[in-house]
Amino acid sequence: MEAKGYHVAVVGATGAVGQQMLHTLEQRNFPISKLTLLSSERSAGKKVMFRDEEYIVETATPESFEGVQIALFSAGGSVSKQLAPEAVKRGAIVVDNTSAYRMDENVPLVVPEVNEEALKSHKGIIANPNCSTIQMVVALEPIRHQFGLNKVIVSTYQAVSGAGAAAINELKEQAKAILNGDDFTPEILPVKGDEKHYQIAFNAVPQIDKFQDNGYTFEEMKMINETKKIMSMPELHVAATCVRLPVETGHSESVYIEVDAEGVSAQQVKELLKESDGITLQDDPSQQIYPMPANCVGKNDVFVGRIRKDLDRDNGFHMWIVSDNLLKGAAWNSVQIAESLVKLQLV
Amino acid sequence: MEAKGYHVAVVGATGAVGQQMLHTLEQRNFPISKLTLLSSERSAGKKVMFRDEEYIVETATPESFEGVQIALFSAGGSVSKQLAPEAVKRGAIVVDNTSAYRMDENVPLVVPEVNEEALKSHKGIIANPNCSTIQMVVALEPIRHQFGLNKVIVSTYQAVSGAGAAAINELKEQAKAILNGDDFTPEILPVKGDEKHYQIAFNAVPQIDKFQDNGYTFEEMKMINETKKIMSMPELHVAATCVRLPVETGHSESVYIEVDAEGVSAQQVKELLKESDGITLQDDPSQQIYPMPANCVGKNDVFVGRIRKDLDRDNGFHMWIVSDNLLKGAAWNSVQIAESLVKLQLV
Repeated sequence: MEAKGYHVAVVGATGAVGQQMLHTLEQRNFPISKLTLLSSERSAGKKVMFRDEEYIVETATPESFEGVQIALFSAGGSVSKQLAPEAVKRGAIVVDNTSAYRMDENVPLVVPEVNEEALKSHKGIIANPNCSTIQMVVALEPIRHQFGLNKVIVSTYQAVSGAGAAAINELKEQAKAILNGDDFTPEILPVKGDEKHYQIAFNAVPQIDKFQDNGYTFEEMKMINETKKIMSMPELHVAATCVRLPVETGHSESVYIEVDAEGVSAQQVKELLKESDGITLQDDPSQQIYPMPANCVGKNDVFVGRIRKDLDRDNGFHMWIVSDNLLKGAAWNSVQIAESLVKLQLV
Repeated sequence: MEAKGYHVAVVGATGAVGQQMLHTLEQRNFPISKLTLLSSERSAGKKVMFRDEEYIVETATPESFEGVQIALFSAGGSVSKQLAPEAVKRGAIVVDNTSAYRMDENVPLVVPEVNEEALKSHKGIIANPNCSTIQMVVALEPIRHQFGLNKVIVSTYQAVSGAGAAAINELKEQAKAILNGDDFTPEILPVKGDEKHYQIAFNAVPQIDKFQDNGYTFEEMKMINETKKIMSMPELHVAATCVRLPVETGHSESVYIEVDAEGVSAQQVKELLKESDGITLQDDPSQQIYPMPANCVGKNDVFVGRIRKDLDRDNGFHMWIVSDNLLKGAAWNSVQIAESLVKLQLV
């Protein structure tokens, strides 16, 4: 460990999440002695500012990771599959924001508020969970810890920035075209690599990522499987319906849960979450206070509100969970993992 | 009964729903001998076309209903409270699209696909349910009939047209302002008569109608109470979270249900709904076929897709229900009730 800090690499430095990673590293004043910015060949050569210095983004190759101590990957699953092992081979710890390694049993899947301890068992690669999963488990973990948890049913309201910068552009251009009465051709959403593309502006599309054979989308299965893994609860009942909205940034979730304890009040849940790390409680119906995506952008916290007891089941609760999908859902959680690695002296 | 048809009055003829009522009466070729178009004083004097004839909208008074046989009300709860009894006193049957009488035990709350028989017990007023309730019970009734039903958890994705023409305008103007980088001041949504107003364009707002003391909104309580009443299932477990989206027209719902029967497959549910009245099944993940609000506008049916079995509970199913909130959610269901009254010789 150098006194000045660590040699950090960001892979996918020019992407929507990569840019937020750099911004977050600056904002958190993360101890960096050397910064290496990497990308696919397509984006190499681009210039990026960091702490008032100009960096030129280089094409990521196995050799790029010589001397790197912490490598934050967010350049797509195939780049991670190819290069994360190369980075590890050269001594780096990889924090991977893609889905490539999340369900690998040798890879910890970490949300620091929930399972920071899992970092200790890492073998070089640490996976950053899916955006929609992260914000949910941050809200669920204090409840599980205090009251037990056995059932989760979530319906999501997800922003287009989760599908990248091109999807943001598609939403804006489509909205303009519709407002002007012009023609438009959907080309990216709901899933760039899928066959059909649908209008997203002024619409709601119940497909995020491709469909599996069981009728669920991969996004839904990510929420189900990753929640169980992060919370170490393979027996937890989790169901998800994932929907893309015409929102630029900020995922929202309508979540129903059942706890183990009897007689818990909504007020108790509110007080618990108010005191919990990484959560801002916004819950005062009398003042129309509740979380909304438009208010969460640029903030690291998970916002929770609309907490209320189910009218039929004593152990059932409903809530509304909102967070910036590019920050806690991606960049901030990755940087937070890096901070935990430093704190736990694992790097 | 006159050979040529009935003397029909539309109260609220210039509003978003009133206009759709007239359009639907035309489209269905409803037997009308005389048409009386009524409104508040504010809109009186406006000219409206119906079957190529120009009508002048008159201020609704008790005397306006002399000779009227069927009165379709959609001018707000206070107008219905004041004038529906006056219309009934003069011999009209009122089909009321407001919430004024829905939970009145002397008033049938009717969705013809579900409880057309309830019309027979009417005492002059028949209530048209809330838009988000109607489309849900149309999809649930065949399932209840075939497999039994004991639990419903719904999260809604509701369009702004449910809040009237001014809300549509607010969405469009706000979207333009945001795309142009201009300032804007929310003035209508989420609830015109509530204290605070929030951005709806590129946002998701978890409030529809005002809050009750129990933390639920009136919209959520409408869905819960009306579902039980329409389906004659006071014991049914129903929970709702209602959210307003930047969608002009077309409500969507992510619905989780538990049926009584064991061993039911998703395929059985699909086949059942495919054959059911008022439903169009749009469910083929392999072809990315599922309902979306942008595709439902102007259509009378309820569209159902994303039907899949819960991964943990044998009797649990998830589905995605979409319909035009101004048609099946309001105007079409009202006209359909009028058609049922004719069919059952109740008028």
